[in-house]
Amino acid sequence: MKLREQKMIKETLEFLQPTPKYRELCILKELENNPKYSQKKIAEKVGLAPSMVNTYIKNISKRGFLKCTGENHKNMQYILTEKGQAWKIELLMKFLNETILLYKAGKNEFKQKLMIFINEGMKKVVLYGASDTCELVMNALGNLGIKILALVDSDPKIHGKVINGFVVKPPCAIEELKPDFVIITSLGCGEEIYSDISGLEKIGIRVRKL
Amino acid sequence: MKLREQKMIKETLEFLQPTPKYRELCILKELENNPKYSQKKIAEKVGLAPSMVNTYIKNISKRGFLKCTGENHKNMQYILTEKGQAWKIELLMKFLNETILLYKAGKNEFKQKLMIFINEGMKKVVLYGASDTCELVMNALGNLGIKILALVDSDPKIHGKVINGFVVKPPCAIEELKPDFVIITSLGCGEEIYSDISGLEKIGIRVRKL
Repeated sequence: MKLREQKMIKETLEFLQPTPKYRELCILKELENNPKYSQKKIAEKVGLAPSMVNTYIKNISKRGFLKCTGENHKNMQYILTEKGQAWKIELLMKFLNETILLYKAGKNEFKQKLMIFINEGMKKVVLYGASDTCELVMNALGNLGIKILALVDSDPKIHGKVINGFVVKPPCAIEELKPDFVIITSLGCGEEIYSDISGLEKIGIRVRKL
Repeated sequence: MKLREQKMIKETLEFLQPTPKYRELCILKELENNPKYSQKKIAEKVGLAPSMVNTYIKNISKRGFLKCTGENHKNMQYILTEKGQAWKIELLMKFLNETILLYKAGKNEFKQKLMIFINEGMKKVVLYGASDTCELVMNALGNLGIKILALVDSDPKIHGKVINGFVVKPPCAIEELKPDFVIITSLGCGEEIYSDISGLEKIGIRVRKL
């Protein structure tokens, strides 16, 4: 299996913003994976201005983490030194730790929303919308002792896909599963999905958006 | 079930840092849940200086999101206005969206690490360490088509607990499960666990830290 290109966070974040340490890690990762990239290409990849990337690279080199080989612009390569590789691993491990912290905080936010439904009597639930949001909600529900009956999604392309041990089913499966609640695990299309399935309320299945 | 106090992110983050918008959301949540809290108490809860919280509260009030009732210090209460409640929900939904984005980015980081083991031939795996890290790894592995045989943990208190449909087992169960890899899903105690179980390598089970 080929390692496909993995994006770090380039989108503009409104609530949590990347620090210089984060930028440094992104640049180190690019340098390690693509030694032939120009500074311009790296800037594009990490979402920074080329002048900024130049400042970072100078600083990284000064600390003995990077050496530059090749006589001219065309065959130039950036190579992480042994010290640079160790530093990258150290930063990455710290970042993974922080990722877990943020994951926990995110899960807690979802738990708080889910507690409202639990207080309404939710016990057996179908999740509508097989996405990353859905994974987080599944993990949060698991900790709260709620039975997940199934995942459904309107997109036929993902029917049959397995997420956390659940086969994604089409929405027409909901009635037969007899859940007491359906939670719409889509933050973007919640309204549309709600108007599609709110009719379930008539047969006693409560439909809730996150 | 009682809604227990949910913490947002107060720890010092090194890679992603809370913005003023995030602080505002934290304060709005505290004000909504605890109208009788003093500014000092709110400051303590959200991890800011009281003077900072005062500035935020003045600003939130000025925009018509908050009114203050009570004649004196002792019976004073902060009440979110209807407009304030709508604003809080808007901010919270945006924050949840951002949470998902960060979750995705975090999962991708783990996927990259896991790809190394997959390239070594990993097909059936036991995860050692039932934690939030483990949940993220399970979600990442699910997307990569790897079979998870079981979760194990050395802590007897969590044996029998169910995480994502897996009952947590004691480490002595590993051999019988015949995995090709054990992944240590603990970022903090990886070294210790590794030295405990690296003997499994002798019977052909590869042991890997994240």
